Amino acid sequence: MIAVDRVLETIDAHQNAALSRLFDLIAIRSVSTDPAFASECQRAADWFVDQLHHIGFDARAHATAGHPMVVAHARSKRKDVPHVLFYGHYDVQPADPLELWTTDPFTAHLDDAEGRPCIKGRGAADDKGQVMTFLEACRAFHTLGEFPCHITILLEGEEETGSPSLPAFLAAHKDELRADLMLVCDTNMWDKETPAITTMLRGLLLEEVVIKAADRDLHSGMFGGPAINPIRVLSKIIADLHGPDGRITLPDFYDGVDDVPEEVAEQWRQLNFSEQSFLGDVGLSVPAGESNRSLLEMLWARPTCDVNGIVGGYIGKGSKTVLPAQASAKFSFRLVGRQNPASILAHFHDHVRARLPRDCRVEFHSHGASPAIQLPISSEPLSRARHALLQEWNKEAVLIGSGGSIPIVGAFKRELGMDALMIGFGLEDDRIHSPNEKYELSSFRKGARSWARILYALSL
Amino acid sequence: MIAVDRVLETIDAHQNAALSRLFDLIAIRSVSTDPAFASECQRAADWFVDQLHHIGFDARAHATAGHPMVVAHARSKRKDVPHVLFYGHYDVQPADPLELWTTDPFTAHLDDAEGRPCIKGRGAADDKGQVMTFLEACRAFHTLGEFPCHITILLEGEEETGSPSLPAFLAAHKDELRADLMLVCDTNMWDKETPAITTMLRGLLLEEVVIKAADRDLHSGMFGGPAINPIRVLSKIIADLHGPDGRITLPDFYDGVDDVPEEVAEQWRQLNFSEQSFLGDVGLSVPAGESNRSLLEMLWARPTCDVNGIVGGYIGKGSKTVLPAQASAKFSFRLVGRQNPASILAHFHDHVRARLPRDCRVEFHSHGASPAIQLPISSEPLSRARHALLQEWNKEAVLIGSGGSIPIVGAFKRELGMDALMIGFGLEDDRIHSPNEKYELSSFRKGARSWARILYALSL
Repeated sequence: MIAVDRVLETIDAHQNAALSRLFDLIAIRSVSTDPAFASECQRAADWFVDQLHHIGFDARAHATAGHPMVVAHARSKRKDVPHVLFYGHYDVQPADPLELWTTDPFTAHLDDAEGRPCIKGRGAADDKGQVMTFLEACRAFHTLGEFPCHITILLEGEEETGSPSLPAFLAAHKDELRADLMLVCDTNMWDKETPAITTMLRGLLLEEVVIKAADRDLHSGMFGGPAINPIRVLSKIIADLHGPDGRITLPDFYDGVDDVPEEVAEQWRQLNFSEQSFLGDVGLSVPAGESNRSLLEMLWARPTCDVNGIVGGYIGKGSKTVLPAQASAKFSFRLVGRQNPASILAHFHDHVRARLPRDCRVEFHSHGASPAIQLPISSEPLSRARHALLQEWNKEAVLIGSGGSIPIVGAFKRELGMDALMIGFGLEDDRIHSPNEKYELSSFRKGARSWARILYALSL
Repeated sequence: MIAVDRVLETIDAHQNAALSRLFDLIAIRSVSTDPAFASECQRAADWFVDQLHHIGFDARAHATAGHPMVVAHARSKRKDVPHVLFYGHYDVQPADPLELWTTDPFTAHLDDAEGRPCIKGRGAADDKGQVMTFLEACRAFHTLGEFPCHITILLEGEEETGSPSLPAFLAAHKDELRADLMLVCDTNMWDKETPAITTMLRGLLLEEVVIKAADRDLHSGMFGGPAINPIRVLSKIIADLHGPDGRITLPDFYDGVDDVPEEVAEQWRQLNFSEQSFLGDVGLSVPAGESNRSLLEMLWARPTCDVNGIVGGYIGKGSKTVLPAQASAKFSFRLVGRQNPASILAHFHDHVRARLPRDCRVEFHSHGASPAIQLPISSEPLSRARHALLQEWNKEAVLIGSGGSIPIVGAFKRELGMDALMIGFGLEDDRIHSPNEKYELSSFRKGARSWARILYALSL
């Protein structure tokens, strides 16, 4: 078995070539949402197939109803090593508004981020740079003649558009994708010196509610008073969802919501997180959620119920004295722990129906549901990954949560029973989805080294 | 002094000529909201000036920033007779959707309404037919050589677009328009056999509320929980405006709201009004307002607070996990009795501000306010008009309210201290503002006769 130091040396020795490969990849305009760039998405998939062939993988781009899926396999010569499935995506967000970029978004180059070198370009961080940290680690192992684990790689081209083709693909390729552990490189470090492993992802329940009353819009002079107003009905439904303490009032809503384990809570307290600057950055000043919870807890470990959109009646300029026939709102629940989306949805429907006057009807439209992901914090792979990260960064990796969802992780857990290690090297200020996206050069270099150490550690 | 019977005979004798004049008027496409028809509005004003000259009025079309105002004067030879100001409008609603008309909207003709003859065409009822009832009465008096009262006529061409030029015109022509009593022919009968005088018009207070929170739209995963959601804030504001009994919760809101006088209440009870069919016609079944109030009371004599429109966040198809930076709603209060719009507005602002979390700001945008109109039900002119209507229709005229507002009546009351007699001959099913508008031939004929009797009665 090769020594990990030789792998790290190999990575360092080929740093410039690795950068040049990432620049080539960024030059491919694989914007998944815009049909005009469909051929560029195909080109990105082909580019990866070609790269993966070069580093010893059996790789193939599978056609889907949308953009292709790249699947690649490499087996270790060693026996009894784990089989990992790495997931990433090759598609990027549109570069608009172009005028806010200081350089061409698809001409990647080294730039300066407050004195630190960084790679600038669309996808530099999300997710091309992150994916390439893993590929460069694999390349180094291949150069030295041995993969430490069996490795499957799945790269999709529709992550930025909600992964519409993924569920069907996953169902059809279950056996090919099955592995012992999933690795995902699409998350952030805590800060530029502190690595992080994301162990909690909030789930998401999306439900639209349409309240219908009269069979047409009514004149509020001719009918105002006796005729029921669906906007008022909807407002009451929304207002009643939270108590004065900020808690959600649905029965059994907090079933399966656990307090954060003390080990993790203590780590969060040590994070030197400034609630004030987090909120201040967006023009707010006080946490608005449950009383007696820290902001990080609210964000990573507590469920929410929010309204993402509401509309009813006349919304143009000026006034119109209309009593609308209907009003609708889009609700989203962020879920944590073992909260059960189906049960919550049933209670939510009851909550709505209980507030429905006789002359109103309700329509529900589901926009998807996924439970939270809570990964075991004392598993063997996690311990090994933490140790590997400590060696690379000389700092203990923190176990963090994420307020957002990565539906793919839940899908693999459900469909294939696989847990995931979510380790990424992005930083909060990487401006993903925004103009002038960047990825720190140190993230790119030490990211590749981190994966080398992690793959090595998992194989021991 | 001429006998009223001779006036009525004259009206009847010239019925066909009167119809033909109304048809000519309907043929003028005076759609005020569409700039393409501006010259037709001018033509309608000119047509009236010409008609009024023919029947002994000193008439003139005054230019405004919008469509012209027609003002005309005729003096009675008799002394000590009252001076009335008649108000009407020559503009009409657009005829769209044209494909739903069974005949050309601007080619008026006699048609059949459930076996009763009617005049069909855009404006046949609203307001050309109604205005012409008054003019035909005046014409008969002129033919016989004597007006019973001093008469001023004001016809505007922007009623259907909210009368934008009227306040300035009224202010500039106060002295010319001052009279003892205003007459308005833009309302309905109770039913086709029962005349009505509208003595209560609800006022209207229009206020838009914009709640602002973060300085940009936020990702609900990244900020959901700690970040305040303005849709929730707005929903609470709306939900708290009504108590469980349907009453509005603003302090002092019901100051100046009187119970309907027993005489009027008794009349309403006798009206044989079907709450079920009123609501059933629009797909509803139960009155939604205050408990323990009849539907007519809610509609004519009770105030309301409604939301005419609400919008915030993502309102397209599907879902978007956004926490919007703002949400807004358009509120309307229908006012009755002596309710004071300014005081209610102040309480409403307090209600909103009291529910504003620290990190939210509010913007208020006013879209106008007018108090309710409650005309004295025992005044001498009203009694005389009721008696005149009884003679014409052989049925007691009922005193009704109207849920809607006629801002002009309030403006004249405020600016010139004039009360109004609102008497019209429209029917609920005249389809004003809709395709196949009609005006019953009996409304047209007996309307003119009614005005002759009323003018005569006022002069005694």
